[in-house]
Amino acid sequence: MTDLPKLLLVFVLSYVPWATANPVAIALHGGAGTLTRSAITIEQERAYLEILNAVVEQGYERLQSGAAGSDVVREVIQLMENSPLFNAGHGAVLTWEGTHELDASIMLGQNLAAGAVAGVTRVKNPIEAAFAVLKHSPHVLLSGAGADEFAEEQGLTMVGNTYFSTPRRIEALKLFRAKQHAKIAYEGDEKFGTVGVVVLDAAGNLAAGTSTGGMTGKRWGRIGDSPLIGSGTYANNRSCAVSATGHGEFFIRWQVASDICARVNYQGLGLMAAANQVIHGELTEAGGDGGVIAIDPQGNVALVFNTEGMYRASINNKGQKVIGIFGEPYNTVKHGQDLSDG
Amino acid sequence: MTDLPKLLLVFVLSYVPWATANPVAIALHGGAGTLTRSAITIEQERAYLEILNAVVEQGYERLQSGAAGSDVVREVIQLMENSPLFNAGHGAVLTWEGTHELDASIMLGQNLAAGAVAGVTRVKNPIEAAFAVLKHSPHVLLSGAGADEFAEEQGLTMVGNTYFSTPRRIEALKLFRAKQHAKIAYEGDEKFGTVGVVVLDAAGNLAAGTSTGGMTGKRWGRIGDSPLIGSGTYANNRSCAVSATGHGEFFIRWQVASDICARVNYQGLGLMAAANQVIHGELTEAGGDGGVIAIDPQGNVALVFNTEGMYRASINNKGQKVIGIFGEPYNTVKHGQDLSDG
Repeated sequence: MTDLPKLLLVFVLSYVPWATANPVAIALHGGAGTLTRSAITIEQERAYLEILNAVVEQGYERLQSGAAGSDVVREVIQLMENSPLFNAGHGAVLTWEGTHELDASIMLGQNLAAGAVAGVTRVKNPIEAAFAVLKHSPHVLLSGAGADEFAEEQGLTMVGNTYFSTPRRIEALKLFRAKQHAKIAYEGDEKFGTVGVVVLDAAGNLAAGTSTGGMTGKRWGRIGDSPLIGSGTYANNRSCAVSATGHGEFFIRWQVASDICARVNYQGLGLMAAANQVIHGELTEAGGDGGVIAIDPQGNVALVFNTEGMYRASINNKGQKVIGIFGEPYNTVKHGQDLSDG
Repeated sequence: MTDLPKLLLVFVLSYVPWATANPVAIALHGGAGTLTRSAITIEQERAYLEILNAVVEQGYERLQSGAAGSDVVREVIQLMENSPLFNAGHGAVLTWEGTHELDASIMLGQNLAAGAVAGVTRVKNPIEAAFAVLKHSPHVLLSGAGADEFAEEQGLTMVGNTYFSTPRRIEALKLFRAKQHAKIAYEGDEKFGTVGVVVLDAAGNLAAGTSTGGMTGKRWGRIGDSPLIGSGTYANNRSCAVSATGHGEFFIRWQVASDICARVNYQGLGLMAAANQVIHGELTEAGGDGGVIAIDPQGNVALVFNTEGMYRASINNKGQKVIGIFGEPYNTVKHGQDLSDG
């Protein structure tokens, strides 16, 4: 009889729902572009690797504990929006006018629920505004001042537009403007730098989210692929979840995110084959630069890009962790291990 | 020798490029919704039938004469934008604030070139602004005041926002606001009414375009499916061209336009089967109302909707003309015949 409390305790502990029953997996990116080792200092490289490692571990642990995919996508993207290292939230690039216009979207694979904002200027975390659209409006995509107003009505944290500014992005705009005036093409890596997350949660649901400041020097209320369902973000439990980063116009015209999932769904392709066909086939032929992170219902992960680098991290259904910036990942280690262990 | 000029004349006349060599086809819609015969007078019905007939004939003749699909899409949509009968251009619905925010997009099947505007307020013909984005900018989607500014820089005709207003839409907004305040669902047909055109031109190219005022009483800078590539508009010479109308949020989440073409492309489905699967299958199950017009590279046409009616007209690859408003088309006649001949 004295063992009964112990037995009960064991029973309760083992009943954390889906705690270990189903595989979980996560992949994230912090942008793709013309990154070269010479353009980045050892200190910068270490800073990126550290945050990529920290956020992928944190997201994976939340998934293991049974957290919903939609929550994990939001939490991880918020961490990246709050970091000055990425072109999203604090650290976003500047428009031609020297302000910030931010885009974000989120989609859930179990019911195709989706929410997005384009051109918000005052919401601290655009991904939270996108989720509020999904959860609390009859709409999918809100834009401009109206989207800020909606976010404020929903009680989200609002900031002044300069909150998003960092010295690095102010410099980039100066360079961009100078080159425009001199009619020289701008090739800074600030052209890219979107963040995105895809997950498979313990309930078997896929989710995807993306957040960005867009392109340095963008004008005329330009909207890229990041807030557009099917272009920069897509999730469907039948096929896959995708978040994209790169030259957004190509990702819209080629419907990159939904096309990868359509090939999985209708052609029966594996996730990696579908992502490779679209990124290294169609997109590369068209001259479109960028990459995707993708995940399927089994927790397989694809990190595919046709640029020199893509900030990326993932932990797949077997607990294998990948962290990378340039063409080759640093190493592939087990979840929980430090990079130096690999 | 006296016959030489005559022979030359015959040669020249028969050398209108592609004049009869390849099939051409066109389909257009003027919105779908809860239309009932009782809600529309005989005079209104006749007015709709007349303009549907006139614009489909005009577009078809231009295609027969070898005009590029992109030009025909623009011309036909402009005619419908200029008519007060449709929810696009002059005749567009009003936002919650009592203003007009217009959306349009165009896509070309031969190279996936695309242009779109969301939330423009001063361009007389939003479809022309969308085409200017395609032709004269590095972007696909421009929005808000920036998009108006771009259109003005491109030399397009600008108007005051009240140019778009009509008594019918002002009444509709009053009714919408009253019902909102009384917490009664608004079920006016002004919920729908987008216009769209898809064509196969004599060079064998597909093109699609869509233009709308959106939903009566829309707020927060809401963007629907009409300006979104893959959602409300899609064209790809490999598969099909589609323009959609209906409850936009569903068309975004289900990626209706590109999904129909993906089923044609990857599953080898016929156009009608693909459109039926998406509209009567997925969309209906999800509770989404609306319809599509679609065309394939052979000039087959599909006009598919799950609402009580859809303003529609088409002339297919065999010259067969269909004009309809409610569930059943009025008749199917040869191109050039009047409806009363059928």
